[in-house]
Amino acid sequence: MQFLSDNAAAVHPAVWDAMRHADHADMPYDGDRLSQSLDEAFSALFGRPCTALWVASGTAANCLALAALVPPHGGVICHRQAHIEHHEGGAPGFFTHGAKLILGDGEGARLTPAEITRIAAAIGNDVHEVQPQAVSITQTSELGCTYQPSEIAAISDTVNGLGLALHIDGARFANAVAFLGCDPWLACQGAATLSFGCIKNGAMSAEALVLFDQELADLVRHRRKRAGHLQSKGRYLAAQIHAMLKDDLWLANARAANGAAQELAGAAGERLLHPVEANEVFLRAQPADRAALRAEGFGFYDWGADGARLVTAWNSDPGHVAALAAAIRRL
Amino acid sequence: MQFLSDNAAAVHPAVWDAMRHADHADMPYDGDRLSQSLDEAFSALFGRPCTALWVASGTAANCLALAALVPPHGGVICHRQAHIEHHEGGAPGFFTHGAKLILGDGEGARLTPAEITRIAAAIGNDVHEVQPQAVSITQTSELGCTYQPSEIAAISDTVNGLGLALHIDGARFANAVAFLGCDPWLACQGAATLSFGCIKNGAMSAEALVLFDQELADLVRHRRKRAGHLQSKGRYLAAQIHAMLKDDLWLANARAANGAAQELAGAAGERLLHPVEANEVFLRAQPADRAALRAEGFGFYDWGADGARLVTAWNSDPGHVAALAAAIRRL
Amino acid sequence: MQFLSDNAAAVHPAVWDAMRHADHADMPYDGDRLSQSLDEAFSALFGRPCTALWVASGTAANCLALAALVPPHGGVICHRQAHIEHHEGGAPGFFTHGAKLILGDGEGARLTPAEITRIAAAIGNDVHEVQPQAVSITQTSELGCTYQPSEIAAISDTVNGLGLALHIDGARFANAVAFLGCDPWLACQGAATLSFGCIKNGAMSAEALVLFDQELADLVRHRRKRAGHLQSKGRYLAAQIHAMLKDDLWLANARAANGAAQELAGAAGERLLHPVEANEVFLRAQPADRAALRAEGFGFYDWGADGARLVTAWNSDPGHVAALAAAIRRL
Amino acid sequence: MQFLSDNAAAVHPAVWDAMRHADHADMPYDGDRLSQSLDEAFSALFGRPCTALWVASGTAANCLALAALVPPHGGVICHRQAHIEHHEGGAPGFFTHGAKLILGDGEGARLTPAEITRIAAAIGNDVHEVQPQAVSITQTSELGCTYQPSEIAAISDTVNGLGLALHIDGARFANAVAFLGCDPWLACQGAATLSFGCIKNGAMSAEALVLFDQELADLVRHRRKRAGHLQSKGRYLAAQIHAMLKDDLWLANARAANGAAQELAGAAGERLLHPVEANEVFLRAQPADRAALRAEGFGFYDWGADGARLVTAWNSDPGHVAALAAAIRRL
Repeated sequence: MQFLSDNAAAVHPAVWDAMRHADHADMPYDGDRLSQSLDEAFSALFGRPCTALWVASGTAANCLALAALVPPHGGVICHRQAHIEHHEGGAPGFFTHGAKLILGDGEGARLTPAEITRIAAAIGNDVHEVQPQAVSITQTSELGCTYQPSEIAAISDTVNGLGLALHIDGARFANAVAFLGCDPWLACQGAATLSFGCIKNGAMSAEALVLFDQELADLVRHRRKRAGHLQSKGRYLAAQIHAMLKDDLWLANARAANGAAQELAGAAGERLLHPVEANEVFLRAQPADRAALRAEGFGFYDWGADGARLVTAWNSDPGHVAALAAAIRRL
Repeated sequence: MQFLSDNAAAVHPAVWDAMRHADHADMPYDGDRLSQSLDEAFSALFGRPCTALWVASGTAANCLALAALVPPHGGVICHRQAHIEHHEGGAPGFFTHGAKLILGDGEGARLTPAEITRIAAAIGNDVHEVQPQAVSITQTSELGCTYQPSEIAAISDTVNGLGLALHIDGARFANAVAFLGCDPWLACQGAATLSFGCIKNGAMSAEALVLFDQELADLVRHRRKRAGHLQSKGRYLAAQIHAMLKDDLWLANARAANGAAQELAGAAGERLLHPVEANEVFLRAQPADRAALRAEGFGFYDWGADGARLVTAWNSDPGHVAALAAAIRRL
Repeated sequence: MQFLSDNAAAVHPAVWDAMRHADHADMPYDGDRLSQSLDEAFSALFGRPCTALWVASGTAANCLALAALVPPHGGVICHRQAHIEHHEGGAPGFFTHGAKLILGDGEGARLTPAEITRIAAAIGNDVHEVQPQAVSITQTSELGCTYQPSEIAAISDTVNGLGLALHIDGARFANAVAFLGCDPWLACQGAATLSFGCIKNGAMSAEALVLFDQELADLVRHRRKRAGHLQSKGRYLAAQIHAMLKDDLWLANARAANGAAQELAGAAGERLLHPVEANEVFLRAQPADRAALRAEGFGFYDWGADGARLVTAWNSDPGHVAALAAAIRRL
Repeated sequence: MQFLSDNAAAVHPAVWDAMRHADHADMPYDGDRLSQSLDEAFSALFGRPCTALWVASGTAANCLALAALVPPHGGVICHRQAHIEHHEGGAPGFFTHGAKLILGDGEGARLTPAEITRIAAAIGNDVHEVQPQAVSITQTSELGCTYQPSEIAAISDTVNGLGLALHIDGARFANAVAFLGCDPWLACQGAATLSFGCIKNGAMSAEALVLFDQELADLVRHRRKRAGHLQSKGRYLAAQIHAMLKDDLWLANARAANGAAQELAGAAGERLLHPVEANEVFLRAQPADRAALRAEGFGFYDWGADGARLVTAWNSDPGHVAALAAAIRRL
């Protein structure tokens, strides 16, 4: 009964089907029909012109985006708990050729306009200090919290007002949109680039890097190749993404995962460390509590000394979820 | 009737099956059972201790290998027509942080011990000139030629005698071994690293980066993550590679592709620009010749002003091959 | 009456003389007699085998050192207020090809063994988190505080015990040794590399990068060239450094600067923000206080909203110092 | 009697004087009066708006320029014998973060419009091949040959017509202008950036990086700092450059060096390997010839198996030059 992560869940049957249908020969790299129609699919989804490129990991999507937004001598403002800062093995430094992550704080691993403004104001405008040229936020955040559309709008205004560009790490963007129930664009409005996550949500090996600032497209295409991320049989990646978008599978899957998390949240009650707004549940759990849960067969990660992180997925077993909820109540 | 490339061919049924069987949950990244058993599989194949890591492209395999062998201020001796020099969009410069490719010549896109020695000797041993620290050769070469085991041995001796390390780009290593009919190790003996190609040979999205110098393993693992190439559902890549190795599917597929190429070579006769030792056929073909072939429905790339490149694959349709052979004879 | 910084002070007459004496032709780059004898000079100074290379800035010295100690995917633990983090325009990211600075805290901009241990322990030993491979401290620190020999020894033990390497940014190392009155080695014992500052202390354009770990020498020589820092008339830089070492000019100059700072410190009394252990004085000074000092003709930088930073130099005019001390007392 | 190189010659007295006059305190880095007036000085020299920045080596000047003109995934077309390709220890790869040098041929180490066009045309316009974004030529070339103003104009037209940017490595630009006797702009017209060499021509440690495309200025300023090349006492570098420009010292010095070379060229006659158009003389010289010259006390470098390179400087001793000319005649 695994609640370790959503990042190793099985592949959704519709994704498998789409991959199998891509088996006929077509042009290599991204010259195939499926890859070539991604722009159109995302332009329809977001209601504005987009360029969309498949890549094989969220790290690649995020870091190609950052490298398109900042020069090697520039900086990216992000939250201290951002995935790009903590869990990408230094990939931002690699893809950007050494640009600097400039760290801020904020509840629920979310930045605020005030925090962004404060950070930018503290940096002397000279060559001795690294100048920020972009801001990166995560929607859903690393602590399972979402930015409301109004918060996204306010951040965009702030970021753009400072002359910076906004990147959104959307490894769990689907969970955010499912939670917010809003038009997808409202959950990322004003961003220059969005890493549109699929892998945690039922795909196998494809994320979509969506460029709202289409002037970046040529550069990102070159950088994707240069990073070894232009797979020759790209049609199998494009097929996964199309399958996720078709009939809003991405939202259905996210709703399933979010629903399971809400069930756990209801059981956790006062134990919750953060509001549960997606598919991650952080709860206060002493070592003895954790041992008790594990003794019942539940898998999850510790969260600091006195906490636990539980992650649901598109295919979390309802019986397992109910059992875990009951076990939490018994603590 | 496509002979453009082997890099967009369909996925072999046994590979599909293996991927489907990997669908049950397991540890993320490369912590799963399948990824963890790659070392063993390749150690058995090559008869010596190996570390083997999946990556999603030949470019990534080659460039992670080079980055492990040379420091940013170092150099890699390779053939002027090497894939790493010509068709990887500058990826070697990216992964190695600016190391230099030092170009040599040789028939059939193959380097010789003498050429390697000549190049190394011409470089002054000072800080003004970039010092080579590795040699990269391609087995099968970019012109469809193979190195004989004795040639590989001689190159290894030379390279190691110079204090350098040998990398082998084996995007079509299977075709070389199938052609040579030798023990796999003899086709790459003395190499520190081998990019063991699967994608052109029936897999979907997985190459194996094989490290014979196992001291490189820790470094390559970190670099793979840092390059965004540590996929979270890595078991689907490992499954592909295991499927290729099982019952020597890799050799069977390569033999099929090589056989088709031999059929074309037999038809080409005097038109051949290079000996056909794998699955690529380069033939003299005037624009009118090429137009004639294309008029019959054959797809292929021009090769310079007066040539054509024909590439067969594991699943080349025997009828198409026979038809092309006949068409070539009619030229 | 400038107390802005020591980084633009005049060149000491003995340094001028040494440069003039270097005017005769000699070998280019670092092949000249003066450059070639730097190793010997520093080996004598520190009582152990050293390699010493001139470079033209403290930034270059620090960053070449870090690049020798950590790979591109590695990290460097340093204080949040370290010069390498704040005022080198991202140079560490450039020279190391994207390695990460991992920030810690500590009074007086000094790290402690406990803090280093805490930081290292918090980093998971996997490929997802950047692994530290070096620690960098600044002696004298950016807040004008020195590490006692016992503190340096304890840090070295900790750093080496963790399997890391120690770099010391010694832009004001002379001021530290002058303050401590100890054998120079005791002020940097256990370090692998030391940026031995000369420019702030009476030289024009030469710092010495001292390598106690001599296995780094070959690598640093290549990297210095590759960074455009191997000047062709290097003898003029070597001459500056030799002049600083001769008859302990480096200590005499530092003592002069430290003495001036002590005079100011005595006047500042309760206003001091940090103990004055070198040539920098940080004092509480409201905007009105600062305006009053500036009205009397004193130049200095603000330090936050309510502070001032006063820096003395080897050639601070005693009259100016006395006048400033009197002015501070009048506040 | 040294003819090894001009790169280690003594510093001109006027340069010494200017440096001494810079000894009074001024703002650090490039905030001083002398640094701030470089733009004006070069704008006057070239008759158009320029930004001019001091750096400490020709390598730094060239590579900062290239990094401003090409992105990390781009390429620079240059001659196979260019200094940036051969003798900068991989610095272009470092500063540009891995951009590729794309090599061409041409007599006297000079590129032609036809060669540039040929190279550009051979590169497929896709992400698999590195796309050139700049061309770099050397005026005076590495073989002591100059481009005529009409040749520079033709190259500029070609380069700009291809949508590329032109960089000129002018380590010996003074020698070219002195030889051509033309307006300085005509010797570099159409370039975006020029490395204006001073060090080989009587300065100590300062080259001027001249940006005709002033939109590059902000970027280059950040990159100079990030490369550790923003010296804190920059006024001593600016002073050197001003001294070189004052009363056309740069041309007088170059004429002296060129004149000495002409004297040697006259003696060499049929032995000349290249026309002598600056201060370098390449002559056919068998090992026995070279031994004979060295036996008489002349220092110089071999040039291949059967050649010698003789370089004169601004301060070549007329007696030594005459003696060498006589010795050459006696061979």
